[in-house]
Amino acid sequence: MPDFAEPLARLITEFKRLPGIGQKSAQRIAFHVLRASREDAEHLAQALYDVKDKLGLCRVCNNISDSDLCQYCRDSGRDQKLLCVVEEPHNIVGIEVTRQFSGVYHVLHGALSPLRGIGPEQLKIKSLVERIGQGAIEEVIVATNPNVEGEATAIYISKLLKPLGIKVTRIAMGIPVGSDLEFADEVTMWKAIEGRREI
Amino acid sequence: MPDFAEPLARLITEFKRLPGIGQKSAQRIAFHVLRASREDAEHLAQALYDVKDKLGLCRVCNNISDSDLCQYCRDSGRDQKLLCVVEEPHNIVGIEVTRQFSGVYHVLHGALSPLRGIGPEQLKIKSLVERIGQGAIEEVIVATNPNVEGEATAIYISKLLKPLGIKVTRIAMGIPVGSDLEFADEVTMWKAIEGRREI
Repeated sequence: MPDFAEPLARLITEFKRLPGIGQKSAQRIAFHVLRASREDAEHLAQALYDVKDKLGLCRVCNNISDSDLCQYCRDSGRDQKLLCVVEEPHNIVGIEVTRQFSGVYHVLHGALSPLRGIGPEQLKIKSLVERIGQGAIEEVIVATNPNVEGEATAIYISKLLKPLGIKVTRIAMGIPVGSDLEFADEVTMWKAIEGRREI
Repeated sequence: MPDFAEPLARLITEFKRLPGIGQKSAQRIAFHVLRASREDAEHLAQALYDVKDKLGLCRVCNNISDSDLCQYCRDSGRDQKLLCVVEEPHNIVGIEVTRQFSGVYHVLHGALSPLRGIGPEQLKIKSLVERIGQGAIEEVIVATNPNVEGEATAIYISKLLKPLGIKVTRIAMGIPVGSDLEFADEVTMWKAIEGRREI
């Protein structure tokens, strides 16, 4: 690795710690910052501080929010009877871009993982049950990840909520739209056949 | 685009302004920052400030430096008779990783471009001529980019320095090592044939 002046080397190291940024990208970005105005660098630095200082969790759904209630919980136009449970706040983004879901959310901030010592107490499950207890919600869609931990979490939530008379559903697993059957792994293929629907 | 809380949206926008970072990467990085400790975010923010505040140009070669002389000009082990001219400080990185070049550098901070109003006065060419005038340098390798502007700059420098009795050379252009002849464009192929060497 060539020697860089210390502040430049440090900026490269810091960028490399971000996801998806390797040595070459980090160098490229650092040299870009070097060429950019001080004002531009300040804006990025200030945005970093603000994200750490001005954001908290929504009192109702635990989504990231800059106020007491997040934008979805504040929005009276959303269907308060339909609740979607996700693992992380960024999962909401993936659902919102579809523009099809009009319900509200609940963020667990993780998934059950006995191996990593994450049990129900470490997740926002208690507040989920309390929300259901208030009686407005009719259906809970569990949109945790389609892996072992996400599945375990979905089953746990389902067992917890069904006795409360709530409809609990799981997002469909199957072949991604636009892909080729040839590339589907066997588990996905089986889920696709198992989850078949009449046409 | 889904709504993000304002500080998060602003951080995503700032990351998107960096080279090679699109919407998805910016979101991924911003959510990473959100999950990381405040200390980690501070380190990156501070590194951004330091790069703008603590770095200047080397008095001799115009490379980025945190002191009066850059690490290459300070290094007495380097060959002061061999000077490599580059367009930008980051071009030095690409040469240093080869670990083969032991001379010193001169950074022009750009290339001649009449269309963009960049003439010799806008580049660090005067200080290059002054350096040559001091008499220690025997060969100047012009490592400007192999495009129209870089070529024009190389020819300009060559015409300027040759009357001073300096050997001026240009980096070789040809087929990249490890690539396939099939993918070489016609200009590169011609440069490769023109620049052929006896084996």
